[in-house]
Amino acid sequence: MSERGLLIIVSAPSGTGKTTICRKVLKACPRLEFSVSYTTRKPRPGEVDGRDYHFISEEEFKARIEKGEFVEWVVNYDNYYGTSGVDLEEKLKRGRDVMLDIEFRGAQAIKERYQDGVFVYILPPDLTELKNRLGKRGFESPMVIEKRFNQALEEIASIFWYDYVVFNDKLEEAVETLKAIYVAEKSRRSRLEHRIKEFLAREKERKLF
Amino acid sequence: MSERGLLIIVSAPSGTGKTTICRKVLKACPRLEFSVSYTTRKPRPGEVDGRDYHFISEEEFKARIEKGEFVEWVVNYDNYYGTSGVDLEEKLKRGRDVMLDIEFRGAQAIKERYQDGVFVYILPPDLTELKNRLGKRGFESPMVIEKRFNQALEEIASIFWYDYVVFNDKLEEAVETLKAIYVAEKSRRSRLEHRIKEFLAREKERKLF
Repeated sequence: MSERGLLIIVSAPSGTGKTTICRKVLKACPRLEFSVSYTTRKPRPGEVDGRDYHFISEEEFKARIEKGEFVEWVVNYDNYYGTSGVDLEEKLKRGRDVMLDIEFRGAQAIKERYQDGVFVYILPPDLTELKNRLGKRGFESPMVIEKRFNQALEEIASIFWYDYVVFNDKLEEAVETLKAIYVAEKSRRSRLEHRIKEFLAREKERKLF
Repeated sequence: MSERGLLIIVSAPSGTGKTTICRKVLKACPRLEFSVSYTTRKPRPGEVDGRDYHFISEEEFKARIEKGEFVEWVVNYDNYYGTSGVDLEEKLKRGRDVMLDIEFRGAQAIKERYQDGVFVYILPPDLTELKNRLGKRGFESPMVIEKRFNQALEEIASIFWYDYVVFNDKLEEAVETLKAIYVAEKSRRSRLEHRIKEFLAREKERKLF
């Protein structure tokens, strides 16, 4: 019997380097799979269907909502994004560990169904990059941008809801830390009860002489 | 202000390779210090005073008990062993992380004073080595050895009290796992509240334009 897989959820403000960190951790950990979200937005250059997202039509997305297939979904700038609970369950049941890249509200929805998920928030050295991105949209007044930045700051305050916080001051260290969180959580006694009981039963049975 | 250090407690059955694992982790983690116990037993060949143990007289040991200096102490085969709470507090206050090598009853005593300690149990691939050691004492009958082994098995059942379990099937993997537990625990949000608050306050103050 294979133990149920571990679910690790990663959130971060825009411009933190989350995608790079997650990819490097996934590459280093063969038992850990990335959970690919579904979206109705068009692929950007370099994005691969099935790797970065499952790109589907709005019609199909809505049909999947109807069927209750998404454990969480949101609409951002008229595009739908969602996590398939069916895909997730199938992986976890097979004993695969799954990494989910998601923002705070999505993470909260996941927590309701997966209390034993591991919730990690990544922070950049500072929010300069986030500020630049908010400014780059172009046409808005400084007041609008400032308002948006304050909203972003409020969302970052959700950090106190997470289990772990990784500071991405140095990329390689952040990668090592996220990997360590994954490895450590796999070694939690509460996740190893089955294996420990097997060990004890086996040693009890083995004859001493 | 430096944050308070982290306390990591490691237990294992005799013959697990705990000492080797701990030494390798300590070598790889410069911020982590080993807590050196006090004992009244004589140094064995190769043991260094102040590194393996603080070797003191029974008289001095008893005087330190009187002063309430030990956070835990035991008598084993007429020898006293104890952990100085004074040493421990001094290190943790300075923000140093401390590793403690101790058996179950000692770990329980530590937990009473250090609820936020991290408690790790290391298991060998099997208990052959432990059996051999119990047998090697020499003069006892198979029945006595068997009784002792069953006592040891009962003590191993305390494993369900620990936070983490590391299987020492391959030495290097066990070292990596113990290191990962240490690194992950340093990234627990609950241990980083101070640093996160500083980050948020700083970013709030910085002018956007």
